[in-house]
Amino acid sequence: MNGADALLATLVANGVTACFANPGTSEMQFVAALDRQPDMRPVLCLFEGVATGAADGYGRMADRPACTLLHLGPGYANGAANLHNARRAHTPIVNVIGDHATYHRHYDAPLTSDIAALARPNSLWVKSADSPDTVAGLAAEAVAASFGPPGGPVSLILPADSAWLETGSGPVIAQKPMRPTPSGEAVDAAARAIRAATRPVVLLGGQACRAEGLAQAARLSLVGVRVMTDTFVARQPRGAGVFPAAKMPYFGELALQELAGADLMVYAGTTQPVAFFAYPDRPSVLLPEGCTALTLAGRAEDAVAGLAALADALGAPREGPTQVLALPDAPAGRLTAYAVGASIARHMPEGAIVCDDMVTSGTGVTANTGGARPHEVLALTGGAIGIGLPLAVGAAVACPDRKVLALSGDGSAMYTIQALWTLARENLDVTVVIFANNSYRILNVEMTRTGAGDAGPQAARLLGLGEPDIDWVSLAKGLGVAAVRCATAEAFDKAFEGAMAQRGPMLIAAAI
Amino acid sequence: MNGADALLATLVANGVTACFANPGTSEMQFVAALDRQPDMRPVLCLFEGVATGAADGYGRMADRPACTLLHLGPGYANGAANLHNARRAHTPIVNVIGDHATYHRHYDAPLTSDIAALARPNSLWVKSADSPDTVAGLAAEAVAASFGPPGGPVSLILPADSAWLETGSGPVIAQKPMRPTPSGEAVDAAARAIRAATRPVVLLGGQACRAEGLAQAARLSLVGVRVMTDTFVARQPRGAGVFPAAKMPYFGELALQELAGADLMVYAGTTQPVAFFAYPDRPSVLLPEGCTALTLAGRAEDAVAGLAALADALGAPREGPTQVLALPDAPAGRLTAYAVGASIARHMPEGAIVCDDMVTSGTGVTANTGGARPHEVLALTGGAIGIGLPLAVGAAVACPDRKVLALSGDGSAMYTIQALWTLARENLDVTVVIFANNSYRILNVEMTRTGAGDAGPQAARLLGLGEPDIDWVSLAKGLGVAAVRCATAEAFDKAFEGAMAQRGPMLIAAAI
Repeated sequence: MNGADALLATLVANGVTACFANPGTSEMQFVAALDRQPDMRPVLCLFEGVATGAADGYGRMADRPACTLLHLGPGYANGAANLHNARRAHTPIVNVIGDHATYHRHYDAPLTSDIAALARPNSLWVKSADSPDTVAGLAAEAVAASFGPPGGPVSLILPADSAWLETGSGPVIAQKPMRPTPSGEAVDAAARAIRAATRPVVLLGGQACRAEGLAQAARLSLVGVRVMTDTFVARQPRGAGVFPAAKMPYFGELALQELAGADLMVYAGTTQPVAFFAYPDRPSVLLPEGCTALTLAGRAEDAVAGLAALADALGAPREGPTQVLALPDAPAGRLTAYAVGASIARHMPEGAIVCDDMVTSGTGVTANTGGARPHEVLALTGGAIGIGLPLAVGAAVACPDRKVLALSGDGSAMYTIQALWTLARENLDVTVVIFANNSYRILNVEMTRTGAGDAGPQAARLLGLGEPDIDWVSLAKGLGVAAVRCATAEAFDKAFEGAMAQRGPMLIAAAI
Repeated sequence: MNGADALLATLVANGVTACFANPGTSEMQFVAALDRQPDMRPVLCLFEGVATGAADGYGRMADRPACTLLHLGPGYANGAANLHNARRAHTPIVNVIGDHATYHRHYDAPLTSDIAALARPNSLWVKSADSPDTVAGLAAEAVAASFGPPGGPVSLILPADSAWLETGSGPVIAQKPMRPTPSGEAVDAAARAIRAATRPVVLLGGQACRAEGLAQAARLSLVGVRVMTDTFVARQPRGAGVFPAAKMPYFGELALQELAGADLMVYAGTTQPVAFFAYPDRPSVLLPEGCTALTLAGRAEDAVAGLAALADALGAPREGPTQVLALPDAPAGRLTAYAVGASIARHMPEGAIVCDDMVTSGTGVTANTGGARPHEVLALTGGAIGIGLPLAVGAAVACPDRKVLALSGDGSAMYTIQALWTLARENLDVTVVIFANNSYRILNVEMTRTGAGDAGPQAARLLGLGEPDIDWVSLAKGLGVAAVRCATAEAFDKAFEGAMAQRGPMLIAAAI
């Protein structure tokens, strides 16, 4: 076997069985080795940002890494924005980045660049396998490192000669690291502080927002604790049967309004809440004056165990409240984000996976989906828009029996629109909803907030997506996905109901 | 004025008058300031890779930098692949990368990342303007640094508070650095070595491949010197009236075959030729055995002056040979890259700018365009495909009175397909030709060359772009560009002739 075979054998032996790829010449040995390793599923993406976003969606749903296959520095860089999001989501991902043969690097051929330097800011771990005999061991190390805790993308650089040369090394098994349990002292301190506080808040993030964490946090809500979650959570169950924790508002002044009077904030799986952006004369830290903060469980710790122990210590009942099923009426009239949300709530099947890149449309949709059938939401954790469709690719590969929704702003979707082609190629069961307002609408809001005033004619050209309006139906058809445009709530409701009743990719442009 | 005003005033005062932008919240002050600075033309791109590739095309044609406006680390990263190409093209570009307010950075908000670390591998110069009073001075420093020599992208990080706070500093003028002239000793040494050699070659790169350099090199061809150029040149005139220098072949073994017997290679504006990729048992360095190499002018030196002095020293005539106009007959029958090349040669107007991201189709096209009306070719200098359409955006903004052609493989075009929308928005006079072979065809070639064997079923799925075939006409229509698909040489010839006769963007899918 050659180095590429050793790599694939190790990845598969460690449960890495999906590869989101956009290969080039330096990756041809890896590509060829795929034919000798049928347990690895290769998924071609026509742009690397789709591959990395898909690996993020896959990792969030599978709780194990997919690998990406990327072409030297530029291929990695094309995927870096969605790896930034994955780093913030703490999603395990193993990037395999092809490189020139070791002896060719110093000639500074056109594609040469400092791959490790490019990869480092968004990788927990970066190493180069500079001989074929090191490939398997480093691949196992990479998988282990991707789990953190709390996990994230790692980058294994694979020089072409390390892939093509023979090696005797077999697959190496990685040890998956455990999350340490919070100490008894931390639990006791939190319990004491909560008992002493007038208006205590527990803020959940990361792993604490998964089903088990929410179930424990729900118990706390019965003993006088306000439970909130981070604004952007990698994966969170929602809808009927799930504890409906409040979300920290995106805008800092709204968050502080929500938190008014809170005198204690306990962190479980997260850290101090901060404003997404700074604005003149507005605070960066979202803790009210005089509010004490303490950590029950950091991001790397077992927040679920911490929450359970805290609930026990506070004598909370064994079970907390959950959301009841409450489906909205059929929407009518003008199509708005609220109307879209109503339709989604009405028709989305149990177990649906919602990939949220909605930006300004999120508020309206989310307001109407809280009582829907149980589903899970994957949010934009790092602020780099263009993740909704790629996340859906990966979630659908990880969970072929669940309906996946990609809900995306029009501006967001355009960053990684190539994802539509992969949906078609793999016939993934994904319904894409594009909120077509022909605008980077969030920026119109933000422009005022930053004190920059209203947009004049030059500025307006950078905030609007019209002239020309994007024809989403043609665009989707061009990439092999059936599509329809809806301009009324009734039309959207019908189209969305139809999409839920069929399998395979479909796009609905919601002209809001 | 605030920091954003100071930045724009300095950029404009230094001749930076085009801004290829994809802004976010942290860039809103810059956007607002555009309304107070009408001499800066903002061009919205729906993806940052379009913005950076456009800045490359603009810089190659204008010989001065455009600026880009990018949103923190992820926005920069999205543009990094085409900045890799621009670095290899030595194109002056000033990236303006928005960042969080200085006091907000350490809170590690979701969009926080190490921007400088991300930018460094593809930037000649990276600095952050951490107070409004430093903005103008650093902007001038950035412009100067972008000129090199030999030039390239630079990155100015602009924290939001440095943009919104007031400053008294006015615009600062940058000093454009000069290229040093090669020494008399270097010229004499080259002349002596050429006289002593049996088969001397002069290899041109960068600035030496521009009109003035080619004219001097043509003189050398009359005194027994073989003149060749680098395989991938940032900007090179071609066609009638231009000296037709041979190009170093892409594949190393072909290059060595071409160079067989050469006993001297003199570099003008370039360095030692190396293989694009390494392959088992093939050489990395493309110098024949026993061939001596010496440098007349490095990339940073004035290679044109060096070539002129060398031609004088060798007693070459004042004028060298040039290509005569030789237009092919109308192609007929099956549509091939050769047929496309014939049509391009027949109908392309004088002064056309050809942005080449053709990959495997390049050989056929180029074989037929050598005798066309004088035109200029902008090549893919860094190997990161997805530059053809963005280059065309920038070239058309820089040269509104010249016809621009974007010739792109289908796989290449998909990386930055968002460029079509900007062509439509700005009504740029660009004809896009897509070579639709539904394949990363180059990879089928490369797979064999790397010794990986033929593609089996899994590998083949990563090399083919079919299933589904991209419908280029729908895709272009979706983004506002009129398009037609041609499946015969006759149809293509007619469509291309029509495109040359009209103004504004148009796409032709060549089903080769």
